[in-house]
Amino acid sequence: MQLQELQQKYQEWIFQQSAYTTALNVMNYDDMTIAPTKGQQFRADRISYLVGELYSICNDPSMKEVLTALKDHPETDEATRKACSLYLEKMAKDQCVPKEEVIAFAKLANESYNSWLSDKHQGTYSAYKKDLARVIEAKKKHYSYRQSEKSLYNQMLDDFEPDMTMEQYDAFFAQVKERLIPLIHQIQNAQQVDDSFLHLAYDINQQRKFTTEVLLPYLGFTPDWGYQSETEHPFTTWNSENDCRTTTHYHEDQLASNLFSTIHEVGHATYEHQIDDAFDGMILSDGVSSGMHESQSRFLENNIGRSKEFWIPLFPKLQAYFPEQLSNVTLDQFYRAINKSEPSLIRIEADELTYPLHIVIRYEIEKGLFEGTYTTDQLESVWNAKYHEYLGVDVPNTSQGLLQDVHWSSGDFGYFPTYALGSAFAAQFYAQMRKDLDVDTLLANGNLRTILDWLKDHVHHWGCAKSAHEILQLVTGESFNPTFYLDYLTDKFKTLYNIQ
Amino acid sequence: MQLQELQQKYQEWIFQQSAYTTALNVMNYDDMTIAPTKGQQFRADRISYLVGELYSICNDPSMKEVLTALKDHPETDEATRKACSLYLEKMAKDQCVPKEEVIAFAKLANESYNSWLSDKHQGTYSAYKKDLARVIEAKKKHYSYRQSEKSLYNQMLDDFEPDMTMEQYDAFFAQVKERLIPLIHQIQNAQQVDDSFLHLAYDINQQRKFTTEVLLPYLGFTPDWGYQSETEHPFTTWNSENDCRTTTHYHEDQLASNLFSTIHEVGHATYEHQIDDAFDGMILSDGVSSGMHESQSRFLENNIGRSKEFWIPLFPKLQAYFPEQLSNVTLDQFYRAINKSEPSLIRIEADELTYPLHIVIRYEIEKGLFEGTYTTDQLESVWNAKYHEYLGVDVPNTSQGLLQDVHWSSGDFGYFPTYALGSAFAAQFYAQMRKDLDVDTLLANGNLRTILDWLKDHVHHWGCAKSAHEILQLVTGESFNPTFYLDYLTDKFKTLYNIQ
Repeated sequence: MQLQELQQKYQEWIFQQSAYTTALNVMNYDDMTIAPTKGQQFRADRISYLVGELYSICNDPSMKEVLTALKDHPETDEATRKACSLYLEKMAKDQCVPKEEVIAFAKLANESYNSWLSDKHQGTYSAYKKDLARVIEAKKKHYSYRQSEKSLYNQMLDDFEPDMTMEQYDAFFAQVKERLIPLIHQIQNAQQVDDSFLHLAYDINQQRKFTTEVLLPYLGFTPDWGYQSETEHPFTTWNSENDCRTTTHYHEDQLASNLFSTIHEVGHATYEHQIDDAFDGMILSDGVSSGMHESQSRFLENNIGRSKEFWIPLFPKLQAYFPEQLSNVTLDQFYRAINKSEPSLIRIEADELTYPLHIVIRYEIEKGLFEGTYTTDQLESVWNAKYHEYLGVDVPNTSQGLLQDVHWSSGDFGYFPTYALGSAFAAQFYAQMRKDLDVDTLLANGNLRTILDWLKDHVHHWGCAKSAHEILQLVTGESFNPTFYLDYLTDKFKTLYNIQ
Repeated sequence: MQLQELQQKYQEWIFQQSAYTTALNVMNYDDMTIAPTKGQQFRADRISYLVGELYSICNDPSMKEVLTALKDHPETDEATRKACSLYLEKMAKDQCVPKEEVIAFAKLANESYNSWLSDKHQGTYSAYKKDLARVIEAKKKHYSYRQSEKSLYNQMLDDFEPDMTMEQYDAFFAQVKERLIPLIHQIQNAQQVDDSFLHLAYDINQQRKFTTEVLLPYLGFTPDWGYQSETEHPFTTWNSENDCRTTTHYHEDQLASNLFSTIHEVGHATYEHQIDDAFDGMILSDGVSSGMHESQSRFLENNIGRSKEFWIPLFPKLQAYFPEQLSNVTLDQFYRAINKSEPSLIRIEADELTYPLHIVIRYEIEKGLFEGTYTTDQLESVWNAKYHEYLGVDVPNTSQGLLQDVHWSSGDFGYFPTYALGSAFAAQFYAQMRKDLDVDTLLANGNLRTILDWLKDHVHHWGCAKSAHEILQLVTGESFNPTFYLDYLTDKFKTLYNIQ
């Protein structure tokens, strides 16, 4: 085939995928936010059909030849070459599992999700235990088709974070435990922070007004490219540079919950928004890895959003929306309250400092499951022992313990570690940004734009055109180095709790 | 083919259509309500692609044989037979126009829409005049392919309201003019109604609260099957029995605007919701005609929603939401205000009595355009003359005159008459309902459910399984008879304005 013909076939193919992906994104967002509840099955049946159509397009056998020829053609530009490689990789992974097993797994994942939900409601670990074992066996079988030389869990890790290995995570998490567990103990013995004013009654409509009138515009999340809805569990989805949707959740007695959910999800959305728009609609337009995506949400939420300087221009406005609750609170008290650290049971409610320990526990369990150390029978006791050992927390029931997260029910193993990795990437970028910019003064002056522009120029615009590790190297001059993260947490929390 | 094979092919084919239709409905609703504005083109390109896919499925040549065989098979049930006929009719209409002309027309309609919008903003009738002439020529050409024996405008009328002819509309509209124009004059000379309290400042959040907390639940429009969003121009769309979406618009200085938009759109949604759920996802599950759909929205909005009895249980609640504006207003004053009649320029703001005259004007112009009486050059002067003659209103500029409606820009001729027809069908059903039920007492007691159930049992459940005229005949014992409508309006407004 001539170059022109290859390009045309390629363009048509990615456009088709993009059409179905956009439809499915919109349908899923609709389903999660506003769609009438009893119409769910009707829509789900049709969504499944369209997922099948998309799968057939993505795995069109005739495209393998086109992608290979285009990738190897001397006149193909670098971005297209990279895209072709990624499409071929994805195809190889998708196609190695027989289609009937893919379909059977979708059914199993659904059953397992339901037994997880039911066990969680009842506080038991029984039906789900059996399904989880089936999910694990199915996953083992799927990965066996790849005939990779990597160990099973390394392959799983690689699917969420290419280039990160068990050995690297082991080293990272060893440092996390070594440096953070003693610090958490020190904080427990220090003078505690009062955050009771964050838990007064905050009218939800008034919270909504502050978010839409002040916070979202300040974050640059405007209706020309972004939309925020409401769901029980906040999330972000996107179609293109100018179509990124987030959700949040309001709790009357938790002022901080929506504030930091909003900032976190806008961090994800801003990443997608700031990817080179030439990549729109193709594989390069996504964030490059789970860790990198999480780094951008956590950067905005924690490094920026939980800094004192971020709130210098915003806190007086927040006080004006809630004079009754906040007029006697100082900025310093507010800053300390939103950073209060305390070991707790639930990962998604954990503070910035104790959070990575929740991840360490999940990582060690996943690794043990696939390296043969643990069976599903042991998970409850292993879970509870580790919570006691690392966080000093006793798990009162399995709903608030092993069953708190949904991820494993659908076979997402290897995902959790990227949450902690994201925080660590964020700290590494943050250290570099502080060399390049006077971050504190910018924030104090209400100039978030310069910070977002730095993220665009250094991190976001690449999309998938560079790997996470290439981006880290380009921006910070070195590959992943967890020291930045551990130093950042140590400095921040020692200062906050007056620890020498 | 065996019956079983025919049925299977048929089921697969309608399911495929339904999958794409659902995706497109959700995407369009999303686009009209919440989607980020700058992402519009990206989405529109993908929507166009999916429209093309749906068109190909709907017009799959191999299905003509299947549908015909299934329709004629002795064991096929009546509903499927009816559905097959409707699918075949739709196919025949779609397929007779060459595909390149369909595509060219979509482009022309878009250009014409843009020139309409631009002329409307500028108050000129120039670029749009040329495009409108092109749209009319294209429409004439499209209809010529059908080789129908009916006149051109009769074919257009038939597309929106099967079985209604120019002759029938002529007779209907002659009566409308004969009976309503003198009544409108009488009212202009009578004591005028004070509706100034409807135009005080009504906080939009408070309006929203009344609508979601009181009005929508009272109408039975609940989140399990319905969702209401907000748009500039209210509309309704649906996917299935349990997935109907409406929109409304709030104006701070027009309390009645949202109230009656909401009731009107819920009328459309309730029709779809109450169609036999065995028809879900297939051609029978839609309202049977434009006039019948409009009859159901106007029935709920006008015959029910603008009655005094409807407000007996609701007006005290409305007063409680707006004590400052409404505590000194009596139910009778409110009832008279929401029914105030006054000739005006803009169709969509017209009251129940003067509304059909706006339709008569559009009908006479459309008919003239296709019967050769008028050219596009004459439309402004014809429009203005008719507004003066029928409504005594002088049109100050073309934006508020000829250019007020979007319909013609995309070639929707034959649609307007169904708006008035809908009101007339509604009055005919209303007369019958009053024989079957004690409507006033039901409403006064807050029992709307019995009324909605009557609509379901008599009108809604049929979907497209019966024609509009079959339904009228079944329910009221006679075919369309405009006397019910004209009697209803005469009685209501003579009483309201104390005219003997």
